[in-house]
Formats: sequence, C-alpha cells, structure tokens
Amino acid sequence: MTTFNFSLSKRASTATSSVIREILKVTERPDVISFAGGLPSPEGFPVEKLRQAYDTVMSNHPKVALQYGPTEGYRPLREWVVSDFKARGVDITVDNVLVVSGSQQALDLIGKLFIDEGSKVVLESPSYLGAIQSFNQFGPTYAAVPTDELGLVPEGLTDEIAKDARFLYALPNFQNPTGRTLNLERRIALVKRCAELNLPLIEDDPYGELRFEGEALPGLFALSQQYGGTVIRMGSFSKVLAPGMRIGFVIAPEAIIAKMVQLKQATDLHTASITQMAVYEAVKDGFLTEHLPKVRELYKRQCGYMLEALEENFKGIDVTWTHPSGGMFLWLTFNESINTTELLPRAVDEQKVAYVPGQPFYPLADKPVTNNLRLSFVTVPEDKIRTGIANLAKLFK
Amino acid sequence: MTTFNFSLSKRASTATSSVIREILKVTERPDVISFAGGLPSPEGFPVEKLRQAYDTVMSNHPKVALQYGPTEGYRPLREWVVSDFKARGVDITVDNVLVVSGSQQALDLIGKLFIDEGSKVVLESPSYLGAIQSFNQFGPTYAAVPTDELGLVPEGLTDEIAKDARFLYALPNFQNPTGRTLNLERRIALVKRCAELNLPLIEDDPYGELRFEGEALPGLFALSQQYGGTVIRMGSFSKVLAPGMRIGFVIAPEAIIAKMVQLKQATDLHTASITQMAVYEAVKDGFLTEHLPKVRELYKRQCGYMLEALEENFKGIDVTWTHPSGGMFLWLTFNESINTTELLPRAVDEQKVAYVPGQPFYPLADKPVTNNLRLSFVTVPEDKIRTGIANLAKLFK
Repeated sequence: MTTFNFSLSKRASTATSSVIREILKVTERPDVISFAGGLPSPEGFPVEKLRQAYDTVMSNHPKVALQYGPTEGYRPLREWVVSDFKARGVDITVDNVLVVSGSQQALDLIGKLFIDEGSKVVLESPSYLGAIQSFNQFGPTYAAVPTDELGLVPEGLTDEIAKDARFLYALPNFQNPTGRTLNLERRIALVKRCAELNLPLIEDDPYGELRFEGEALPGLFALSQQYGGTVIRMGSFSKVLAPGMRIGFVIAPEAIIAKMVQLKQATDLHTASITQMAVYEAVKDGFLTEHLPKVRELYKRQCGYMLEALEENFKGIDVTWTHPSGGMFLWLTFNESINTTELLPRAVDEQKVAYVPGQPFYPLADKPVTNNLRLSFVTVPEDKIRTGIANLAKLFK
Repeated sequence: MTTFNFSLSKRASTATSSVIREILKVTERPDVISFAGGLPSPEGFPVEKLRQAYDTVMSNHPKVALQYGPTEGYRPLREWVVSDFKARGVDITVDNVLVVSGSQQALDLIGKLFIDEGSKVVLESPSYLGAIQSFNQFGPTYAAVPTDELGLVPEGLTDEIAKDARFLYALPNFQNPTGRTLNLERRIALVKRCAELNLPLIEDDPYGELRFEGEALPGLFALSQQYGGTVIRMGSFSKVLAPGMRIGFVIAPEAIIAKMVQLKQATDLHTASITQMAVYEAVKDGFLTEHLPKVRELYKRQCGYMLEALEENFKGIDVTWTHPSGGMFLWLTFNESINTTELLPRAVDEQKVAYVPGQPFYPLADKPVTNNLRLSFVTVPEDKIRTGIANLAKLFK
C-alpha cells in the first residue's frame, strides 16, 4: 500500500486492484487453460469487413473522421441504431440515442447521472462485477433483489428494497455472471413494478444478439413503451463486431439522454469520430444479418462442448450449472461448504485451469456467497475445453 | 428545465448545457465567421499517413487491434512516449505512462483521483473551461492563483490559497484561453513552491508541440525530477495528429499511475486498441519530426494574419491582446466597462462573427470578469480572418 504526502479522494483511497484484473494476469500464463476471461472469440471478428470500413472512411471522409465531433455521437450511426430498433418495433428517434465509448462508459455515466455519496442502488444478486466497480466510484450503498434459477424475481423487489433507491440495474439476457435469461412474464412484471415505484430501470444488454437457442424476447425498454416507467437501455458493438473498438450506445428518454450528453462532454468530450464512422460503415448495409448467425453458431458449438464436458466429468459432484440460451457464460453452484475463492489458487497451480469465483459478483459484501464460479465457453478450443473441465472436476472430487 | 419523477445525482441536477457547446452550435451557421472553435486545423491532419497506419494495423495485427486490451494502454505506444520523453531528458519508464481517451478523460480521472465533495482545487484565473467542467462533476470548491501578462504568478500561491487544496492545475504552454507561456524562472518557482506545500501539480500540455516561436522550455514534470514535488503531466495526440482519434496520455509517478489505472478500468475499461495501435504505427518511425514543422508553420502564418488584422482594425479601441508563441488562441482584454458575454449575440447577429467570451474561464463565479474574449486563429482562412476581425472591431467602436 503506497502512502502519499497529499490527499486522494475517498474513492481513490479505497480503490483496490480488481479481482478480474488479477485473474486476467493469471490467464496470460500459456500453461493455464482459462475459462476466466470475458473476451469474445476473435474467431468471430469480421476482420476484412472492418479493414475495409476503416479504409473507406479514411478515403472518403478523412477530415470528419479525424476532427472533433458532437458529444451525442456520429449522427448516421445513431440513425442506424434507431432503424435497427424500429425494425423490432421499438419506437425511438435519434434524440433517444447516445453513442458511448463501450458499455463500461455507459455504466460510468449512469453512476454520474444517479449516484450521490450514500445513494441506494438496487442490483440483482449476483450482478455484473464491472457494473459494481463502476458504481462504487460514486459511493453508493447497495440493496439486492433476489434471483432464482429463472433470474431476477420481480416480486422480490419489495417496497423496502426500492425505498429511496436511485435505480435498479439488470441484465435480462444471458446474464453476466449466471447466463440466465429473464422470461417474458418476469420482464413485464419487472417493468410494471418499477413503473409503479417510479424506479428507473437500467437494462444492460451486451449479449442480446448472441442468442443461439429459442426466440428473442422483447427488451425492457421496449416493454416500457407499453407498460410505462423509465428504462435506460445499454447496448454495445463489442460482442457483435469487436470490443477493441470500444463502441456502445445508450437508448433512453430524450431528457435523460440530454443529461447524459452533458456528463459525457465533461468525461471525454466524445467517442472517437473515426471509430464510430468505421462501425457505421461496417453495419450500414445489413452486414450483421449475415455475420451474426456465424457468431451464434460458433458460440452454440462452444457452449455445447462445455456442457458435454461438464456432464461427463462432474458426475457424482454436488453441483448444478446453468444452460444458457446465448451469451458467453455458464454458472456453477456447489454446496455451501465449497469456497471457490479459496480454491482458485489450487485450480491454477495444481490443475492448470482458471475460472472466476462467484463471490465478487454479489453486491452485499457483508453476506458473502462463496459456492459459485463462472466459466466462459467462448475462446477456448474444443480439446482444451474437455481437458480443462476434466481437470477442474478433479479439484472438486 | 425537465423534471423527473425520480431523483438524479446532485451533479446531474445542477449540470447545464455548456457555454462552449452552445457557441459551437452558432459556429455551424455558414454565414458566421467563427473564431470561437477550439478545433485544430484539418489542413494539418496527416490523412494519408493515418489511412496507411490503420490499414497496416488491420492487415498485420487485426486480432489484437479488435480485442480487449490492457487498461494501461498499448505497450508499444507507452514505450514510444517513454522514448520521446527520454529524448528530451525526462527520465521515465513505461510504468509512468497511462494512455487515455483524449486529454478530457485525463481531467475526468484527475477529478476522480483527487476530488471529494467540497475539496478545494486551485486553478489559474482564467483557466481552461473544459477542465472546470470536468472537475465540477465531483463537487469541488475553487481557489484561484493570480495571473499577469506572463501567466501564473508563483508568489501568488499563498499558504492560504494552498491550504487543504487537493491540487493545482496549470497550462504552462500557450495557455487556453490566454495563449500565454510561463517562463523558465516561473516554472522553477512554481514547481519548488508546490513541492514545499506537498501540493500535487497537474501540468496540462496539449499545445506544447505547437510552438512556432522561440525555444521550447522544460515542462513542469521534467523540472520536478530536479526540484522535487509531485507533477502529473497530461499530453495528447489531438493537436499533433488528429483529435478525432481521442488519444492522450498521462505521465506521473508510478503509484499515481497505478491508482489512475484502477479508476480508468471502472470508467471505460481501456482506450480502443485499434486506435492506439494506429497512432503508434503512425508515429513510431519519427513521422512527427517531419510532420510537426508543417503544422507549426501553418499555425504561425495563421497567427500572423490575425495579429496583423488586429493591429489594422483595433486602433483607437481600448484593448490589449496577447502575442502567443504557439498554440491556437489569442486573448483580448478590454476596459472593464465592456461585457463580452452580453455583446456576443450582437457580434453574431450584426457582425456575423463569433468568439468565446472570457467569463466562463474564470473559476470564481462570484467574482465575474467580463472584459475578455478568446479568439482561435487556426481554422479560418486568411481572407475571412481579415473580414472577421474588421467586423469585430466595428462592434467595439
């Protein structure tokens, strides 16, 4: 712990290196099979399409691409988002869309928009670790809405939990970390309940396009147009094109977008013009409708390998796991005597396999839950999935 | 003013649309000659070099360019910054360098690092408006260190002003808004004084490479290696390559960088991999040593046109202006009866010319200073500079 001869902010003084970060370091060791990453598969990157997109932008519009741009984002890209959502029956205009520097920036702006020191924030339990870290910057307290094997339980959002809360943050599709998807009935119930409570609902949907089983369900923002309430929806090109471009977007009521634009201006002025233009160039002619089925097929295959390997190797171990219909993650639940945080060093050292322990995904630090772990099925090749899962099983036997 | 049926954070409730933003809207009117922008000249963008750089990156390293990357930044780019500073006698390693999404993000991270609600921040008076807006997000109070025609007055940094302050933020080269440059004597005095006070010194240097007159002076970070104290230096590729890429960097003691990395991770995970790689590809073989002289020559010429036009047209008006030796801006000071904020609508409507009034650059809102204005000399062509300045003079006659 470094000490300074001057004062830092409270947030900086209490910030610690993240668990995910430390784990990602481990996963760089070539002898370790890592299911810990949250990285999409580079096999799914449309390299040639994006190479061409950059070249087209730099050949046709270099002086716009290289100049400062509006904080709201590159207008044709915002219009593309509008038309993409209109095609799914969501009624929005360009004033409902803000382009951001990846979904993580949307989380930062949500924190800035809503959280004062001590404000209450409601999360699913467990919830996305990156969101918890982002919100932590603004000093909130957390309340947790319970989840079961079908995800968030809308009836669990009691008056007491919601009281004075600034917002509820949820991932309805293939949730990170659990891989669970909220069914339509619960989505409607959740939107109605939040509307009734005047509780803004943050819908994070980075994986929605990665559904490889079953039918797409309407999003919470779409349902709010029917059932009322305020929903702020976060979307991303990280999983459908490539994360290294850091392009995401927020869809929200116009007055909310206007506030977020003010905050984003103070945060980074605007997202890189050239990158927004390259994304637009890549997607504008319907490329995703040919590209996404390939990514979905790849992820479905990968998920299948891991489920098979779990069936084969985890017989006789007291454990259940989720069967995601999309996304990137599986979630294992052991009996409560197991502590996956404590076991991680042994998994890495003895079995040469890495996972993310479940504990940091739980927002209430005073009630630690230690018997879960998260596995990513997307980047590891089939043979290593089988070896890695077999090795992991040895640890729990 | 929109009202919501839920609560926003204090920062969001009090945020208002920025003066700069409203002005930039005006400048989009084709009939207005705008000296209000802070945009670098697109004539200086190395379009072909950057087009090739993107193409090389996407041809040679597409899967790194499109994947998530480390929060600290693309290592070869950080190493390039190290070698660039070593060549000027500044002794740093890669652990002293963080890549950020433009200098504005560095300001956001500085605010996150240091400012709690009510913390005192010391600024030059006047100071950069974008910094004030960024720091405002975290609820500071401001103290102002006086400036004169040579810039910040180090002796003006009294014990009282510095007491309990979290940092002092300064732009030593071609300051925004005044265009003034701090001389070596004052730089040394400032670094020594801050070291004595244990007051971290933030050195913002977006324009340092745009010196078109006189010799470069050592930066505050460099001087801190000789005279002690903690300096955090912000640099940017916006003015030497292109702002639309949003790539900047921070140089600071290793322990400070480590804290900023934690904060950046929660803020946007990392800056776009592909963009960092394209910047590296463009600069790695010494391109800037051939490119920058052209930009400096262009800016020098532009500055000359404006100074000539001011001499010609502002005779007989009670006004002084700065003679910058680099950067983008000139600063006019009228007698105290003039209110440039009130005159702006008339400038635009009657004279078809736009400037930025000086008032919002002053950090102490309770002591408004209204008799200054800022002019950018870089983007307007020579004939329009002459017409615009002649029209502006009519307003003040």
